[in-house]
Amino acid sequence: MQHRAAMFCRMLEKGFHSSAQRANKHHLRFPPLTSVDLPDIWIPRHDASIAKTCSPHLKTNSIGQTARVLEGKPIANNINSRISAEICEMKSTIGKTPGLGVILVGGRRDSQSFVHIKMKACMKVGIAPFTVELPEDCTEAELFDAVSSFNENPLIHGVVVQLPLPKHLDEEKIISYVSPEKDVDGFHPTNVGNLAMRGREPSFIPCASKGCIELLLWNDVEIKGKNVVVVGRSKLVGLPTSLLMQRHHATVTTVHAFTGNPEHVTCGADILVSDIGVPNMIRGHWLKPGVVVVDMGANSVEDTGSLQGHRLIGDVCYEEAIVKASAITSVPGGVGPITISMLLSNTVDAAKRTYRNT
Amino acid sequence: MQHRAAMFCRMLEKGFHSSAQRANKHHLRFPPLTSVDLPDIWIPRHDASIAKTCSPHLKTNSIGQTARVLEGKPIANNINSRISAEICEMKSTIGKTPGLGVILVGGRRDSQSFVHIKMKACMKVGIAPFTVELPEDCTEAELFDAVSSFNENPLIHGVVVQLPLPKHLDEEKIISYVSPEKDVDGFHPTNVGNLAMRGREPSFIPCASKGCIELLLWNDVEIKGKNVVVVGRSKLVGLPTSLLMQRHHATVTTVHAFTGNPEHVTCGADILVSDIGVPNMIRGHWLKPGVVVVDMGANSVEDTGSLQGHRLIGDVCYEEAIVKASAITSVPGGVGPITISMLLSNTVDAAKRTYRNT
Repeated sequence: MQHRAAMFCRMLEKGFHSSAQRANKHHLRFPPLTSVDLPDIWIPRHDASIAKTCSPHLKTNSIGQTARVLEGKPIANNINSRISAEICEMKSTIGKTPGLGVILVGGRRDSQSFVHIKMKACMKVGIAPFTVELPEDCTEAELFDAVSSFNENPLIHGVVVQLPLPKHLDEEKIISYVSPEKDVDGFHPTNVGNLAMRGREPSFIPCASKGCIELLLWNDVEIKGKNVVVVGRSKLVGLPTSLLMQRHHATVTTVHAFTGNPEHVTCGADILVSDIGVPNMIRGHWLKPGVVVVDMGANSVEDTGSLQGHRLIGDVCYEEAIVKASAITSVPGGVGPITISMLLSNTVDAAKRTYRNT
Repeated sequence: MQHRAAMFCRMLEKGFHSSAQRANKHHLRFPPLTSVDLPDIWIPRHDASIAKTCSPHLKTNSIGQTARVLEGKPIANNINSRISAEICEMKSTIGKTPGLGVILVGGRRDSQSFVHIKMKACMKVGIAPFTVELPEDCTEAELFDAVSSFNENPLIHGVVVQLPLPKHLDEEKIISYVSPEKDVDGFHPTNVGNLAMRGREPSFIPCASKGCIELLLWNDVEIKGKNVVVVGRSKLVGLPTSLLMQRHHATVTTVHAFTGNPEHVTCGADILVSDIGVPNMIRGHWLKPGVVVVDMGANSVEDTGSLQGHRLIGDVCYEEAIVKASAITSVPGGVGPITISMLLSNTVDAAKRTYRNT
């Protein structure tokens, strides 16, 4: 796998160089100033066997304490019960209920499972769930129609298009078509722009990033003035987390697959957030003693000992990190449950805004 | 001045703490997740006399070479002559000319001077300049009308609202009102969002950031994989430069007034970009030997030796930096001239898009 990744990387490099050369040729006219978009392909630097487990016998950290494990579930439960109470109040005072519309295209099992979790969470707190399922080979026009009908439906306050979409559909165009006022995922460019710029308020903040900050705030981890390193820059997690951390006045460094010496950068982090998608890539020597680790990775690895034959692990080697960090999220059970709560919270916010304006 | 800045900072801190406490109280409901917006007040850490000059007798860098001085004017001239040729061609083939509309509110002398420079540059390359001047006390409705008339005018392809606006006008609202297709300054949230997200293309990139990258590309400075530290995070310069540097696959750290130990962070920079607004704040010991310095600051300081009684200097102590850096921009004359060229280039792009679509 490492060999394949390395090969892919070389291909990309080749591609990049020829693009750069092309760009250079036209340089004196109008060079591509936003640069060539390169996919972030991470190459794990260590033994592949580490992906399954790493030295689970280590239990205390370098200053003799066990790191605090940051659990998302109790926080999520607390938030959800408050959301539930708020919806009850909304129902009893104005007779209205928030509604969330989710559009699922195709038959990806992970996407189906995510949609199922979201719908179940909605029903638990009293949000009316709406779903549209479209076949894998649906046309862009059909998907636009589905978004449009949710955008216009007054019973629906939040619209989610479950990602990723099949390759023939233009994800960017579809996301831009969701009404910014119903964009509870926070992925619309106007909302991302408003998140990036201080002094502006996005209608919604992406749920995983909001969940990450929420987890830190609940655990009294100070963000302002801290060195935060976000490893990964995906549009869904890494990028908005970097932007949000900066809104909280952290000094943010974003590490990505083209960072030459990532472990050198991460060693300076007071708070490390990972969004890579490579199991156990971040090892103990990547961490400063006392760091707070928020592992946003959820990677499925083979596990013959489990009933399903696989289990979820993070981007950070938990067993090595727990002896260096002052606090670390569990995977699963860290930011994940709060992310769902944030989606519910965004939907309630959207409904409140709608009814405040009518 | 230092004393006033420190007092102001303490007031801000006090304000922040009480806001934070308030947020904490409501924390279990809906905390302000984009955080309190704190203005970046920089406190120079050294002798105030340094603001005028610092050790001008040092002339060679630590490896015995004088740093290359990156001049923007020759690059700007080159770009402008190409733009001029392109406009001639446009005129001769389709009989059309690009138009730039600039709105100036109030009587700030610096703003008047900037508008004058922009208009003069337009005329030099053949862009039709349009201006609207509104009085200091104009209403928001009057300003909206002016933007609206430029948005709708088919002869105008780019619309610029000269910033800053008088305090009673909501800058964010006005900027959002400029058509994203005519937003040649690149400050509209949709354009900023599209700049932040890989895979998307903003209609326009902010001119100073685009100028910074242009300067580096023309001077064969590699950006991909380099550690870039952007000091300052203003919406007009620092923020979009950080975003654009990341689009070019640099590992970007954004330093701001709440960064505890900025000189420690800047010492790791292969490329340092400054956008602070404090003369000579960045000293020699903030720099790694061989760093490339792009000084985007333009600070007016008293100079009894000059005819005007003042002169422009940057955020970086030039005399100390030139003996450590491998390359450094001159101030004035560095990114400034290219910034204007980028505005012209954005305007031509806007016109070309319009005529391509009609």
